[in-house]
Amino acid sequence: MKFVRFERDGTEYLAVEQNGALHGLPVTDRAFPGTLDDLIGDAEALAAAGQTLAAAPALSDAGARYLPPFERSGKILCVGLNYSDHTEESGYDQPDYPTIFARFSSGLIAHEAPIVRPSLSETLDYEGELVAVIGTPASKVSEGTALDHVAGYSIFNDGSVREFQHVTPQWTLGKNFDNTGAFGPCFVTAGDLPKGALGLTLETRLNGAVVQSAKIDQMVFSVAKLVSILSQSMTLMPGDLLVTGTPSGIGAARKPPLWMKAGDVCEVEIEGIGVLRNRIVDEPAKAANAA
Amino acid sequence: MKFVRFERDGTEYLAVEQNGALHGLPVTDRAFPGTLDDLIGDAEALAAAGQTLAAAPALSDAGARYLPPFERSGKILCVGLNYSDHTEESGYDQPDYPTIFARFSSGLIAHEAPIVRPSLSETLDYEGELVAVIGTPASKVSEGTALDHVAGYSIFNDGSVREFQHVTPQWTLGKNFDNTGAFGPCFVTAGDLPKGALGLTLETRLNGAVVQSAKIDQMVFSVAKLVSILSQSMTLMPGDLLVTGTPSGIGAARKPPLWMKAGDVCEVEIEGIGVLRNRIVDEPAKAANAA
Repeated sequence: MKFVRFERDGTEYLAVEQNGALHGLPVTDRAFPGTLDDLIGDAEALAAAGQTLAAAPALSDAGARYLPPFERSGKILCVGLNYSDHTEESGYDQPDYPTIFARFSSGLIAHEAPIVRPSLSETLDYEGELVAVIGTPASKVSEGTALDHVAGYSIFNDGSVREFQHVTPQWTLGKNFDNTGAFGPCFVTAGDLPKGALGLTLETRLNGAVVQSAKIDQMVFSVAKLVSILSQSMTLMPGDLLVTGTPSGIGAARKPPLWMKAGDVCEVEIEGIGVLRNRIVDEPAKAANAA
Repeated sequence: MKFVRFERDGTEYLAVEQNGALHGLPVTDRAFPGTLDDLIGDAEALAAAGQTLAAAPALSDAGARYLPPFERSGKILCVGLNYSDHTEESGYDQPDYPTIFARFSSGLIAHEAPIVRPSLSETLDYEGELVAVIGTPASKVSEGTALDHVAGYSIFNDGSVREFQHVTPQWTLGKNFDNTGAFGPCFVTAGDLPKGALGLTLETRLNGAVVQSAKIDQMVFSVAKLVSILSQSMTLMPGDLLVTGTPSGIGAARKPPLWMKAGDVCEVEIEGIGVLRNRIVDEPAKAANAA
């Protein structure tokens, strides 16, 4: 089941995609089954919601504004250096444990919303990534059972302001500029994809040119390994997001560097999930009024 | 006003401390003004809640279990390397921009709850810190107006599993083990403390021995500077926490290292705010069942 969250005329909708059409309901409908944030911890309720929405009328997406599939995730755990070719292009030795940094929901935007290049720096870069969404609490789970805790998948563009990512030893700042992380367009339940999303192809395109292309299989730490390893130290909770890392091809590693700029269009496509598309705009000058 | 959140017999309470006594109400009371998470974005409502609670009956704290003052913070931004003596003992050059890493609410515990030493590592260390709580949205604010956005202060023990903090280039993992971050006991409104908490003394004690002692003034980036600088790249929102960094004296920098172990009691005291006290326990062996 492929869920899509959007709003139209100020009203939020949840829909499922069937045969290329969206079927769904507004939150104001008595039959509205709840948001994905509400449903993610209950696989049966999620499946029932999918049935309810599929039986609802087809919706036009005219005037619709996509929303991030989830916006109340307690943890957004991003994995750095999880494709060895990207580790190499970034000048790091490959760590033998997952490299984790955080993003916060407040900095995320949806499919088709603009990614904002900040006035502070022109070093805005793309990172296409697979997102795994936790469905049931995971504490100290084995790799063999780890995928039982993954409810489904989505797509992320981990937009990074490289100058600020490396201004101190920790990357957090460059990873959390307002309106730089894109998430969506949809949430696909795990049962509709290969186990662990293995075999799928990820491709990032900037203005139509392929800039990243990889198989999910190339991840150093697979989704199953990530869930198992992270769950040894912290309990993963329903709605937590694992943003699983980006393959080689980032703009920062190119000579000369390739930065995203106003007017560019960046797309991240993962086979079987969808295409996350965002236009780049400059931060309005008036916003940069103090320091 | 000094607010304290606790629960007794399964019911949550919010109270204020007056002349050493707690006055407050349970969430089940019709006059309950809302939780701190609800109130933090509205200074008038927060002040009114303080009045309401102050007029409520005195409560015994017998059987009370403290709760973290806030548990729905959208961002918990922790500042590393913010006291130059700590930067030096940690083997880093002092960065000229705030070094930010994240903690997540799901790993936090309250005053008097046990800090859990994980079975994975014995390298559990303390870090006493001042917390600044954002009250109004802050985007691109100047240092001169930054403190207008800080609603108040609290205390943090940024319990760190050093081995995992340094297992990769990013510290996140060692900073987010379950039940290692302590937060509380109270939230003190900014008006009851010196501007920016300047002048206050922070002291960490392990089993009664002073292991960290500093003035808040020693911070490389003051609270006002942190709010201003961080707000240049991301919008700080009501309830966001700035955990402002720890002074020198951490266990990892001692020879031999001083790790916290079961039975130890760690206290972090900040003048005018209170004492955050936690006992250390070992993770139950049964919990460590898979890898």
